[in-house]
Amino acid sequence: MPNVLLTGFQPYGGRGINPAAEVVGALDGQVIESATVTGLLLPVSYARTGALIEAEMARLKPDVVISLGLWPGEATIRIERVGVNRAAFEIADNEGALPLDEPIEADGPAARMTTLPVAAILRALRDNGIPARPSDTAGTFLCNATLYRVLGIAERLGLKSRCGFVHLPYLPEQVAHLLDDLAREAKLELHQRADLASMSRGMMIEAVREVIAVSLRGR
Amino acid sequence: MPNVLLTGFQPYGGRGINPAAEVVGALDGQVIESATVTGLLLPVSYARTGALIEAEMARLKPDVVISLGLWPGEATIRIERVGVNRAAFEIADNEGALPLDEPIEADGPAARMTTLPVAAILRALRDNGIPARPSDTAGTFLCNATLYRVLGIAERLGLKSRCGFVHLPYLPEQVAHLLDDLAREAKLELHQRADLASMSRGMMIEAVREVIAVSLRGR
Amino acid sequence: MPNVLLTGFQPYGGRGINPAAEVVGALDGQVIESATVTGLLLPVSYARTGALIEAEMARLKPDVVISLGLWPGEATIRIERVGVNRAAFEIADNEGALPLDEPIEADGPAARMTTLPVAAILRALRDNGIPARPSDTAGTFLCNATLYRVLGIAERLGLKSRCGFVHLPYLPEQVAHLLDDLAREAKLELHQRADLASMSRGMMIEAVREVIAVSLRGR
Amino acid sequence: MPNVLLTGFQPYGGRGINPAAEVVGALDGQVIESATVTGLLLPVSYARTGALIEAEMARLKPDVVISLGLWPGEATIRIERVGVNRAAFEIADNEGALPLDEPIEADGPAARMTTLPVAAILRALRDNGIPARPSDTAGTFLCNATLYRVLGIAERLGLKSRCGFVHLPYLPEQVAHLLDDLAREAKLELHQRADLASMSRGMMIEAVREVIAVSLRGR
Repeated sequence: MPNVLLTGFQPYGGRGINPAAEVVGALDGQVIESATVTGLLLPVSYARTGALIEAEMARLKPDVVISLGLWPGEATIRIERVGVNRAAFEIADNEGALPLDEPIEADGPAARMTTLPVAAILRALRDNGIPARPSDTAGTFLCNATLYRVLGIAERLGLKSRCGFVHLPYLPEQVAHLLDDLAREAKLELHQRADLASMSRGMMIEAVREVIAVSLRGR
Repeated sequence: MPNVLLTGFQPYGGRGINPAAEVVGALDGQVIESATVTGLLLPVSYARTGALIEAEMARLKPDVVISLGLWPGEATIRIERVGVNRAAFEIADNEGALPLDEPIEADGPAARMTTLPVAAILRALRDNGIPARPSDTAGTFLCNATLYRVLGIAERLGLKSRCGFVHLPYLPEQVAHLLDDLAREAKLELHQRADLASMSRGMMIEAVREVIAVSLRGR
Repeated sequence: MPNVLLTGFQPYGGRGINPAAEVVGALDGQVIESATVTGLLLPVSYARTGALIEAEMARLKPDVVISLGLWPGEATIRIERVGVNRAAFEIADNEGALPLDEPIEADGPAARMTTLPVAAILRALRDNGIPARPSDTAGTFLCNATLYRVLGIAERLGLKSRCGFVHLPYLPEQVAHLLDDLAREAKLELHQRADLASMSRGMMIEAVREVIAVSLRGR
Repeated sequence: MPNVLLTGFQPYGGRGINPAAEVVGALDGQVIESATVTGLLLPVSYARTGALIEAEMARLKPDVVISLGLWPGEATIRIERVGVNRAAFEIADNEGALPLDEPIEADGPAARMTTLPVAAILRALRDNGIPARPSDTAGTFLCNATLYRVLGIAERLGLKSRCGFVHLPYLPEQVAHLLDDLAREAKLELHQRADLASMSRGMMIEAVREVIAVSLRGR
């Protein structure tokens, strides 16, 4: 029986919610294209996420591994093409780690390429009316580190899993909250902010379900 | 019995759909706070919209008049505070009119202020988790002209209607289509575009329903 | 002899510099198209700017009045078309005033239109290779209030002055400083900011000189 | 004697000018930190740039190789950290090549990391009042291909050269021209564009000179 590992981060950066966690919660245990989805909610910890994912990948030997994260300001479903061997955080993780410019793996390659069928995923999402675009950078925060690590883990464990990372926009309620905060704080003017885009919970869940389905079919 | 006039434009600018028309279609005939909503679908015509709205306002004597339009790239529900006496189109309307820099009404005031309760609307929308912000420019295309004209019509007809304009983001399917076009045309790179944000049809309808409800309560 | 009043604000919002003040300093006392420029450096004070400008306009009876202000994130020279009768500050002025949503003049018109020759100015700037665009909102902070007030003062004093407002981008050094701050603060990620554009001091001065020249010729 | 290879692309995408070519022209033959700069103007050709650069690197054995390109809409000097093994052009090069999604080198690594001292460069630029930021994606057009190839060439030739890529903003005159085009074409509204930022020719030249100097000192 095919199976899928779906990871998502807990809230971070002072936010009370993370769309990645919401989508993992919604799809955990569901069956997509006859594969069961196992959801793994991850701490926002540079130190601990690698081992947590590795344990789960060793146990499940998943056909597909999709990791989810928030990209504040992103307006579309964003399929990452590449994870680079660089940690250069702009804000600290939830445990205070703030690597400024260091490799994730001292002896790792400069980057690893997603093994998801990116073009087929983009076509499927857009055909379903879902804004989606490819991206050539997952940043240098925990999201990128996760993509880079997952691809390395698959290799080390000798798994044929299709692995990739999907960046999600804010949920609408997060932007509503952000606008409230801006109005109250009187520190920054609205036109200085680039992070007002959002996407509905329903569309995010539909999008990730589609990413999983296309990835399973593409094996 | 209180009643509401809700106007929205047909598609324009080469697009097959206009969220304003969708929302008007969804709310036409509905009852909100015991007021009936009359939907008025408008041609994208600088020459004809004024008379069409005036006829309907004279007939209905509405308590509230809300006009809807699309603002490509907008990420939130945008409540316009002011309509200015200036037509400076960047693209032609559906009948080819392209005023470059002229007053809408030769003897009109420089601007007219919305009579909607903007602050109360913003609060209600955000409390409902809907991204919303005030705006101090409705542009100088047909949307602004409509806001400016509606406020003038209300005055001329001696109506106490609360009148205003709400700019809507793209629907997600429009951005999916736009991304397809960009990929196919190979003329402009993605990072040159600022119009990838969108909002779900359901949230737009909920938002406009809320705008109407707060405006009715605020009379 | 024709003469010109050029106003610009002091630094605000925690910044050590304001390009508007720099340009006023550079052009104060200069002769443009045989008109002498009088520079007026303004405090960032909602309470006091009106009277300061009025005194100077009564004294000078200027042919042209140009006011300058900073718009963080703006990438071009921005010629404002309209000042609206609304003060809705997002941050406090330097004296702590923070009007949230009130008219500037209780009995004033909804807006006043610039009396600068906007189209001719834009053409001249672009012909000189200077990025420039018209704008239909000067915001609702002190810049807008100044434009609105200057136009009202000219009217009250019976002056035929051509009056308008020009928004300036950041100076490059301000963005360099902002990027340093972001790197140090670890509170906001770079992609959440929309205010990284800038323009050189030299080009700003050349642009404002051109705005003045075209406005003088257009009398 | 130390020496530097500085490459830059000719105009492309229908533009009459490319800031990269301007800066190469300005610095060609100059001496920086006692190293002579050899400028190499490159055709916008996916097929031919690799061999042209390789010949020049073999001949010069440069201590530092800096390649320059335009990123429309970029507001700062952008130091690229990584070149990925992927060509996915959004627009064709000047010879009509339009690879949609293929590796640059069939057997190459997923990415190669710049060997420039990125952090020291950013510090030096900002200390000089020049807006600068690191970037984790050079895109998937010719700029990225050049960075990826240059790093591979250095390796193959056994050179210790410090190699990297710097993305430049538009020159101001290009944005002036773009705004003219937009006004004339009446096809796209200004708010749909994200590419209005620019930087002066003088600041770009100073910036690249500084990048070279820091890279030479950092050997």
